[in-house]
Amino acid sequence: MNVAVLGTGVVAKALAGRLSALGHAVQMGTRDPKATLARSEPDMAGGPPLRTWLEANPKVVLTTFAEAARHGELIVNALSGHGALAGLTLAGQAALAGKVMLDISNPLDFSKGMPPSLTVSNTDSLGEQVQRAFPEAKVVKTLNTVNAYLMVDPGQLAGGDHTMFVAGNDAGAKAQVTRVLQSFGWKDVVDLGDISQARGLEMYVPLWVRLYGALKSPMFNVKLVR
Amino acid sequence: MNVAVLGTGVVAKALAGRLSALGHAVQMGTRDPKATLARSEPDMAGGPPLRTWLEANPKVVLTTFAEAARHGELIVNALSGHGALAGLTLAGQAALAGKVMLDISNPLDFSKGMPPSLTVSNTDSLGEQVQRAFPEAKVVKTLNTVNAYLMVDPGQLAGGDHTMFVAGNDAGAKAQVTRVLQSFGWKDVVDLGDISQARGLEMYVPLWVRLYGALKSPMFNVKLVR
Repeated sequence: MNVAVLGTGVVAKALAGRLSALGHAVQMGTRDPKATLARSEPDMAGGPPLRTWLEANPKVVLTTFAEAARHGELIVNALSGHGALAGLTLAGQAALAGKVMLDISNPLDFSKGMPPSLTVSNTDSLGEQVQRAFPEAKVVKTLNTVNAYLMVDPGQLAGGDHTMFVAGNDAGAKAQVTRVLQSFGWKDVVDLGDISQARGLEMYVPLWVRLYGALKSPMFNVKLVR
Repeated sequence: MNVAVLGTGVVAKALAGRLSALGHAVQMGTRDPKATLARSEPDMAGGPPLRTWLEANPKVVLTTFAEAARHGELIVNALSGHGALAGLTLAGQAALAGKVMLDISNPLDFSKGMPPSLTVSNTDSLGEQVQRAFPEAKVVKTLNTVNAYLMVDPGQLAGGDHTMFVAGNDAGAKAQVTRVLQSFGWKDVVDLGDISQARGLEMYVPLWVRLYGALKSPMFNVKLVR
């Protein structure tokens, strides 16, 4: 499948690398590919800069948001919460229309220090903002509740015996995203309902960051016991 | 141990009944005991009115917030989020000073319909509001992440193989509350840190209410897999 991964950070690299390894044709979208390639500093998790990462993932094509979005049958929003709406706007309404969008971005606000708070929560969510801004896209919120490495390889932890959630308005889009999640190794995927349920998934993140603080490792998740 | 359970709702009955059955001397606090006893309608979960419940739990004494708080070495805040600060104020600053307070109440706002939003979240929490209002109490946020029946008997679900959290400023208070939780059957109790971590525990509740909607049963919890 042709996939656009929007973003070039830790989450974007995890998704693009895994989807490419699974045989998908991945284009990674950024605002200014030349500027992205010029960067030499490590990423937020201490990983290599994108140009080094691309050498190790030669099938992944780096291009603009707009080119990547035109290419993708599936769109992965792996942008920061802060950059998501701006990046998607550069991708373009027409290129996103009718497409399934796997929306990972969290509305994290680091301006008041650690742990971050949320820029939108409680009576709205970033997932809903994205869906409202791109009404013809089929937005499915998912993967925002775990670390990037677990997103694409949940079997690293307890053999994958833990839970992922999806929320979105389109049943077919959720089924397609669930198949992608299953191809990553997710065994237990719980459908919470429409895109407004993204409020619950994004408001879990303040607990996640505190668990990270308590456990001193991001390699954890919750298993829904029922 | 002498315990005050503040509140007379579903959560208060679950806690008072279990603590009494475990041999503690439980006084249940309400604003106006006569008015509480006069009520004949079922509770929010369809359970019996308090006067019927008290006949089945004859060792539990119903009294005022102030009397119960004076009696309790351990204070259980089982009030609604809406009623918590008012009820605790009636209990009285002096009666709460120096005591461990097991704070369960969630700041739920049902005014905009279901699922509820929160009246305070993100950059503050009800747990912190309670701690600020009663600076000499040792507030420990816990149990707010599960249904009342699981709070006091976690072994009903998966033999108790799921997780409870505590957050509070006082290490000794958290250790005492953890022993109470263990006496209920909790095996995995995770200490998140100081009372500001209550933000994470309360912001998980919007996910809980959505899981309740998806699962059609409140008998679930998360297990922290790490």
